[in-house]
Amino acid sequence: VSCGSTENIDLFFHAKSVAIYGASASQNSVGQAIVQNFIKPQYTGKVYAINPKYDQVLGVPCYPSLQDIPGPVDLVVIAVPARITPRVFEDIGAKGCKAAIIISGGFSETGPAGAELEDEVVRIAKEYGIRVIGPNCVGVIDTQSHIDTFFLPEYRCGRPRPSNVANISLVSQSGAFAAAISDWTAELGLGISKIVSLGNKCDVDDDDLLWYLAEDDSTQVICYYTEGYDSMKGRTFFDTARRVTESKPILVVKSGRGMRAKAAASSHTGSLAGSDNVADAAYRQAGIIRADNFEHMFDMAKALAMQPPARGDRVLMITNGGGLGVMTADALEALDLAIPSPSDDLVRRFKEKLPPYCAVGNPVDVVGDTDASRYDIVFEEAIASGEYDLFVVGMLLQTPSLGMDITNVIANYQRQSGLPFVVVSMGGGFTTKAGEIMELMGVPTFATGEKAAVAAKALAQYGEVRYGEDFNKTLTNNKKD
Amino acid sequence: VSCGSTENIDLFFHAKSVAIYGASASQNSVGQAIVQNFIKPQYTGKVYAINPKYDQVLGVPCYPSLQDIPGPVDLVVIAVPARITPRVFEDIGAKGCKAAIIISGGFSETGPAGAELEDEVVRIAKEYGIRVIGPNCVGVIDTQSHIDTFFLPEYRCGRPRPSNVANISLVSQSGAFAAAISDWTAELGLGISKIVSLGNKCDVDDDDLLWYLAEDDSTQVICYYTEGYDSMKGRTFFDTARRVTESKPILVVKSGRGMRAKAAASSHTGSLAGSDNVADAAYRQAGIIRADNFEHMFDMAKALAMQPPARGDRVLMITNGGGLGVMTADALEALDLAIPSPSDDLVRRFKEKLPPYCAVGNPVDVVGDTDASRYDIVFEEAIASGEYDLFVVGMLLQTPSLGMDITNVIANYQRQSGLPFVVVSMGGGFTTKAGEIMELMGVPTFATGEKAAVAAKALAQYGEVRYGEDFNKTLTNNKKD
Repeated sequence: VSCGSTENIDLFFHAKSVAIYGASASQNSVGQAIVQNFIKPQYTGKVYAINPKYDQVLGVPCYPSLQDIPGPVDLVVIAVPARITPRVFEDIGAKGCKAAIIISGGFSETGPAGAELEDEVVRIAKEYGIRVIGPNCVGVIDTQSHIDTFFLPEYRCGRPRPSNVANISLVSQSGAFAAAISDWTAELGLGISKIVSLGNKCDVDDDDLLWYLAEDDSTQVICYYTEGYDSMKGRTFFDTARRVTESKPILVVKSGRGMRAKAAASSHTGSLAGSDNVADAAYRQAGIIRADNFEHMFDMAKALAMQPPARGDRVLMITNGGGLGVMTADALEALDLAIPSPSDDLVRRFKEKLPPYCAVGNPVDVVGDTDASRYDIVFEEAIASGEYDLFVVGMLLQTPSLGMDITNVIANYQRQSGLPFVVVSMGGGFTTKAGEIMELMGVPTFATGEKAAVAAKALAQYGEVRYGEDFNKTLTNNKKD
Repeated sequence: VSCGSTENIDLFFHAKSVAIYGASASQNSVGQAIVQNFIKPQYTGKVYAINPKYDQVLGVPCYPSLQDIPGPVDLVVIAVPARITPRVFEDIGAKGCKAAIIISGGFSETGPAGAELEDEVVRIAKEYGIRVIGPNCVGVIDTQSHIDTFFLPEYRCGRPRPSNVANISLVSQSGAFAAAISDWTAELGLGISKIVSLGNKCDVDDDDLLWYLAEDDSTQVICYYTEGYDSMKGRTFFDTARRVTESKPILVVKSGRGMRAKAAASSHTGSLAGSDNVADAAYRQAGIIRADNFEHMFDMAKALAMQPPARGDRVLMITNGGGLGVMTADALEALDLAIPSPSDDLVRRFKEKLPPYCAVGNPVDVVGDTDASRYDIVFEEAIASGEYDLFVVGMLLQTPSLGMDITNVIANYQRQSGLPFVVVSMGGGFTTKAGEIMELMGVPTFATGEKAAVAAKALAQYGEVRYGEDFNKTLTNNKKD
């Protein structure tokens, strides 16, 4: 089992038979919660419980050990006390299983004795060629195969669903975050393929999953939450990432920017957070886009999953509210995107067709009494001009003069032009629903100009990664920090 | 009518009789939409329509002119073409009305001819002592009196409601933003008292409303959206603000940080956006807190409306998820809040009572299997120690071991200690509802560590404004920008 190996990783997501060590009849136990996930009708594989105390758990046949199970087992989920795990791994090896998730804690995160136990498990796993996720984690959710080892009940921790358009997979060092993100994205409606909580990373690590997710057709954007890298594995990860980002975007949230956070991370995971500036440089070189926080990561991931990368940094902002234009332009400018004025020729074309009280510039303000037709004019002329690489479309729907046909106009021009579009639509009930419609039509929609700007920036950043020298960069990078 | 006068301003919010100039029988017209707002049963005042074409509009008696209305009229709402407005104002003056909102556009925002018309209206208004909001605006929403001149239908533009706990009032230069914010805050459930759209500010301006809102018992936090100040009025506004912030927080979102945004603002409102750095300095001196965007402003306003200001900058973070602790500490540190380690004595007290696998530091991580009792221990000891001014409480509810009694523990310690608390609870359905419960119990709750950090910062910033020299500042301001 070497670094960056995808050998048998697929079993974690597509196991056709699962055995749960420590399956339990006692309510609210971890061992019962995991059995509960696998007896849902959505999971179509075979399920076995392992516990010498029972004949069955929740109606699932229960065996004293893995050896007693009649058929093959693809994946073993382990929820027994840490001290028993070496014995369990001998059992797994003897059965010939190749994938195990250790949910239990009590390993290297607790000190030297736990670390020794973890080393022993790793030794046995290597001997038999068993891939291990964990220990000290919540494991895996796959929204398509319905493999689900999160031991948290659905009423507390919602499970996300895959989207028909494009999906995100997320790898998290923190189990609590993996759970919170599962719950959060379930509510957001963001299309998710896989969530993996890595815990102590005794075997499977960020790099292994990167290789796997790069090849995974149901993952369009790969997201990471990490608190740090150990120096050797970190290098491998960045080498892999450089190759992966040529065809698939990678986003990362890395905590531990500050001193205080670094101390907390160290006591939390036992890993050294390392220099944050070094990480920043490594991200840039590898084409990884770093997000400041989860909200930004989700906004970026949504845009990258739904839209093509931009071929340059020239943004045209169209709006039916002047204030929204100003605020969004501020946000775009702060992120070093170019907001070039339309050429004299393009201004002339706009003015020929738009009412005289529209403000023709960048932003183009088609003002509050507009219907979809003025957007139509702006898109047609701006796209034909070739002066812009990316469109940010302000769509304030509080005024009834703008009908829902605007969504068709936006989606059609996006599709025809092949240029990336993001929409910003601020408001409440009607606006939220309209945004969902807009996204079903393929164009990502955001509640504020700042969020749309962050999304637009990601489309330009990834464009630069993808197109390299061919990326049409009009602004030199003069970031203030 | 001088700068900073609150004379007759109250009529805009508490008019017991309203006349609508340009009331109309044609569907989807502005004149009809406004009549519609006032015939809702919630508005208990008298309503009159004015239009020589009709006897009634939507069942409201309609008169040819204001003079023909039998009773007194407190407030006139004007939705007639700009060129007619001088005649309308002669009519208003003759009737003795003292407050008018000009919804119509076509004034100074359109050029010199419109500016002349606006000057004439102002001249007449001054002659008769009429206070004017607008022109070119959507006017006023008062969620308690149900004065509502927003001409946008509720299915598109939701109206916010007042909260029983504490309310925010918002003044916006932009009408489209006023509408979008009405709609947005309706969905957010943020308690709102008043929203005012100022438009061209021909008479009533930011400063007048500041005087008024400072004295308004139903407004706990005053929020502004502005694109700039003209130099004379700006000075008056900042002078007033310095006095108001001694007893009530003022938040502002000012767009036009960037060059591009400045140009757009100028074409949008005809006002010069002015130097952004000058504005920043003026805000600081006046004790006004500047928010980067509306999301931040709402987060800050919620915290300031619900919690006392902090008496110092020393934050204790408590969490049941290590990752959340790290991310939030990062965000707090980036905002220059102090995150001091507990003293040896406090560490000893924590360790005596908490399980050994809890991480005692700052953050204090009571880990994933906690129930409310460990929070109880941390609050009790930390409050008794006097080492902290502000508590940021991570409450991840994906794990069922943490029951809803945590909300009581948090609310009780907040109330008993009188110290400001903010809660961060990341997730979906259950978490969102629990956050609403937490807020009904008086403690503001946020979906991410970054949002909680922004809220905590506002409580410290306003504490510095309120307590001046007595504010216990351990960190010197070493902001990176």
